[in-house]
Formats: sequence, structure tokens, C-alpha cells
Amino acid sequence: MDRNLPIGIFDSGVGGLTVYRALHERLPNERFVYLGDTARVPYGTKSLATVERYAVENSRFLQAHGIKLLVVACNTASALALPAIRKAVKVPVMGVIEPGSRAAVEIADGKKIGVIATEATVQSHAYAHAIAAMGSNVEVIERACPLFVSLAEEGWADSDVARAVAQDYLSEFKQTPVGALVLGCTHYPILRDVISETVGANVKLIDSGAATARDVETLLENSGLTHDEPLGLYQERRLCDDLDHFYVTDAAERFAKVAERFLGSAPSILEAVEIWGHDELRTH
Amino acid sequence: MDRNLPIGIFDSGVGGLTVYRALHERLPNERFVYLGDTARVPYGTKSLATVERYAVENSRFLQAHGIKLLVVACNTASALALPAIRKAVKVPVMGVIEPGSRAAVEIADGKKIGVIATEATVQSHAYAHAIAAMGSNVEVIERACPLFVSLAEEGWADSDVARAVAQDYLSEFKQTPVGALVLGCTHYPILRDVISETVGANVKLIDSGAATARDVETLLENSGLTHDEPLGLYQERRLCDDLDHFYVTDAAERFAKVAERFLGSAPSILEAVEIWGHDELRTH
Repeated sequence: MDRNLPIGIFDSGVGGLTVYRALHERLPNERFVYLGDTARVPYGTKSLATVERYAVENSRFLQAHGIKLLVVACNTASALALPAIRKAVKVPVMGVIEPGSRAAVEIADGKKIGVIATEATVQSHAYAHAIAAMGSNVEVIERACPLFVSLAEEGWADSDVARAVAQDYLSEFKQTPVGALVLGCTHYPILRDVISETVGANVKLIDSGAATARDVETLLENSGLTHDEPLGLYQERRLCDDLDHFYVTDAAERFAKVAERFLGSAPSILEAVEIWGHDELRTH
Repeated sequence: MDRNLPIGIFDSGVGGLTVYRALHERLPNERFVYLGDTARVPYGTKSLATVERYAVENSRFLQAHGIKLLVVACNTASALALPAIRKAVKVPVMGVIEPGSRAAVEIADGKKIGVIATEATVQSHAYAHAIAAMGSNVEVIERACPLFVSLAEEGWADSDVARAVAQDYLSEFKQTPVGALVLGCTHYPILRDVISETVGANVKLIDSGAATARDVETLLENSGLTHDEPLGLYQERRLCDDLDHFYVTDAAERFAKVAERFLGSAPSILEAVEIWGHDELRTH
């Protein structure tokens, strides 16, 4: 495996940019290839079989592009499709559920853990299972917050509407205090301030993206895959600069607009691609 | 053409059930086949090429099922894909834009017309074009209201959050009074009360579904396609009874839940199907 290949990241759409940002901040010497499946977004209301199919197609597309590691930024795809993805590609695969769960267990320090996520992620109980698998027996309270996605994409993160929605969705985390609250959907870090204001400053918010970036760093180091070209090349790294390549499956213009809203800058290199309809993919 | 075949209806998801309800109320002697493309919903943030592709696949699926007429319940698909659909199938095709526009022109009576719809429908200016094509020169004010969809699906139609969102989206219709406001997305009739409360009772709301049902009735009569089996058979018609057949491309359980919320009853016959990946469809 060539350690100087980029790291692949896919998401159902634009939300995974928060994971890209976390990876970029932690690993400024790495290059990234990002795929947003904007033709089929959102995944959070879709079934297991459909999310698996989309996730495998995305993963194979990125593998064909040439990557040394695949990060599944989408919580729903991480919750539902990791086994299918690992079967479909040859590169190491990192989802966001395990890193987020581990960070939550550490930070909650024996207190209950809250998880907010899409409908599909909540129904899968992926976070509760991952936390239990770590030997923790703390209670996990899961809640779907579907409107948060539209609020983030609309640019309404700091609005009275967002505050009212948060009051409704998060009421049980005020009744049953939790030690940590996992932001279990890539869009939710955009609403971090409103969420924190609603549940109170004593509840630590876990951004799965940041937790995943830490685990990716460790994985690269342990497997000798850290980028080793001269550092100088990347000293001036900026988010979305032309060392990173962005693909979407549809509506590139809208993606660029929301990227600007989320990251403060739009991708320098952004390309619309078709990733379905290949026999090799469909007959999987 | 067999006049006793069912009428096909497709939508990007569950929203088209408001059009189904309007058709069912107006044409209790007809049977319906409904396809909700829940694997690829929503269409309103997607590109022309992608919406065309999805719409053509849906239309061919319904044609293969045996229908006498196709109603494109989805405003976005009606706005972007009618020419592609008409090229792809042999049955008559009715979209919701023209009927809604005609009803708006009649009711606005020379005053300005407002249109609220998805991002894609607004960007296409399909309603403005249709209104102009009818020889009307009234000003058309278009506004995208993406959050309304999530609010309707969440069951938050009658909530303070919905009122706050409506205040924001609809503010220009209070500053610039309109004679009629077109509910240009199938989800919006679910929020009719909040919308009406916000813009004031003097603004007439146009439900494209109801307008389309009237036009479908006329079309059936003019083309001799009205169902002519003994009326008695259908005297006890109820919404979602077993004379109508519902297909979804994903997540049937969720569809049934939202159908119950929208119509008061879930489909008796609901089936999940795959409509993509057939060569005949893809090579179009």
C-alpha cells in the first residue's frame, strides 16, 4: 500500500464535510478524496438493504480512485453497512460509530450517555451496541432528530426555530441528565451551540468526526501509512484547497453552496460523477 | 386502451398521497396504483438530469403495471421531467403544475400569485412559465420552503416550530400581498392551516392536487376513459382500501406510518419493489 495515497471519505451528502474538517485539522499532511452521494441523500430514512447498496457503491468508487484508507463519515452508513463495505473493498475501513462511542464512554465517566442521530441510526441501536461491546454497562438513551439536518443545510443553525426544535427533541436529556451526548449525525456539529445551550454546559458533546480523526491518526501510525512526503509541501494547507478532491453524485452547485456555509470555503476541485449502473456494482 | 385499468400516480415519496387523496375523493369509481420512490426521495434538491432519470424509471414501472393514465404527483418531477416522461411512456401523462397554475390564475383574479415549492421547482420557474403560457401577465413570486417537508413528515404540522418557520418563509407574501398562493409541493397541504394563518385568510391557497383531480376527471371524460364497471362495486370506497395498490422503492414501514399521519389510514396493499438497474431503463 502506497502511504502517500489520499484518504477516502464518503458521506450521503454534504454533512460529512464536518468529518473532513476534523480529519484535515488533525492530519494536515494528508490528502483527501471526498464523495458526497447527493443523488441519493438522505440515508437516515432508508432501509438497511438500500443503505448497504449505496454504501458499497460509494466505497468501490473511492477504492477505484486509489486510496489507502476509507473513512465512512456517514453515521447511518457506519451503523448499517460496515460489514458489507469491509467485504466489498480491500483497504482498511473506519466508521464513525466506534470512535464516537469510545469517546463517549471515556467522557461520560460512568454517567448515562445520550445519542442523537437519524431515524435509521437510532433504530439500529448501533451506538448502544458499540458502547456495550466496549464493556460499558451505562444506560444509552437514543433519540432521532431528523429536522436538525434541514436546519443545518438551510443555514438556520443559530435561529429561534432551531432553539424551539432543540427544546422539543432534547427534552428527555434535561429530564434524565446524561454525562455525554453523542452528535451521531454529521450535520449536528453545525448546531452544536444550540444543542449545548439546550442540554446545558455540564453535558459534554461528542463530535464523532473529531473522535474518528484521532482514531484515523492512530491507525495510520500503527500501520505505517502516514504520509511521508516533505512536510513543506503542505505547510499552507487550507480546507478545500486543491490538494483535496471532491466528488458528488448530483447537484454540485448546491453542494458548493452548503460547503461554503459549513466550512467557510467551497471545494477548489469539485466534480459530479455517476457511480451506479455498473454491472460489477449492481450484481454484488 | 382499457378504460377499467387503474390510474397510475407517482411521487418522490409519501407527499403524493395528498394528490392520491384528492383524486380518490373526486373519482371514487377509479382504482389507483401509487408508486413512492422512497429510496431516492427527496427530488427537490436534485438536478434536472437526475430528476428526469428517476421520473422516467418510475413512469415505466407504472406503465408496465398496466395503467390508463399517469399522474405525476410530484411537483419537482412535473416541473423538470414532463417532456422526458411523455417521451418514455405511451399513456397520457398529467403533471400538477399546469392544473395548479390554471386554478391560481382563475382565483387570483388579476392579483399577484405566490408559489411555494422545493428548491428545484422554484429554480425551474415552472409555475411562472405555466402561468405566463396561459396568457396571464400577473407577477409570480416564488419561494422555496424546504423545511416544510420535514415538518409535515415529523407530524409537526400544528406546532410552534411550524408557525415560526412559516413566519420566516412567508414574510414576503405579507409584505407583497398576493391573491392566491400555490402549495407547490405535495407535502404543503399538510401544513395548510399554519400557512393560511400566516399569510391571512384573504389569500386563497391552491392545492395542486385538488386542481389536478379536476383536470384528470375532465381528461377521462373527454377521452372516454372513465371507469364503467358497475358503480356498486365501489360504493364503499375508503382511502387506502384494497382496490388501490401502493408500491414503494424502500422503507415500506416508514411509508405506512407517515401515510397514517397524512390520510388517517395506511395502505391495505403496500409492496416494496426495485425499479432500477434494468438495462431497458438505464439505457434510455
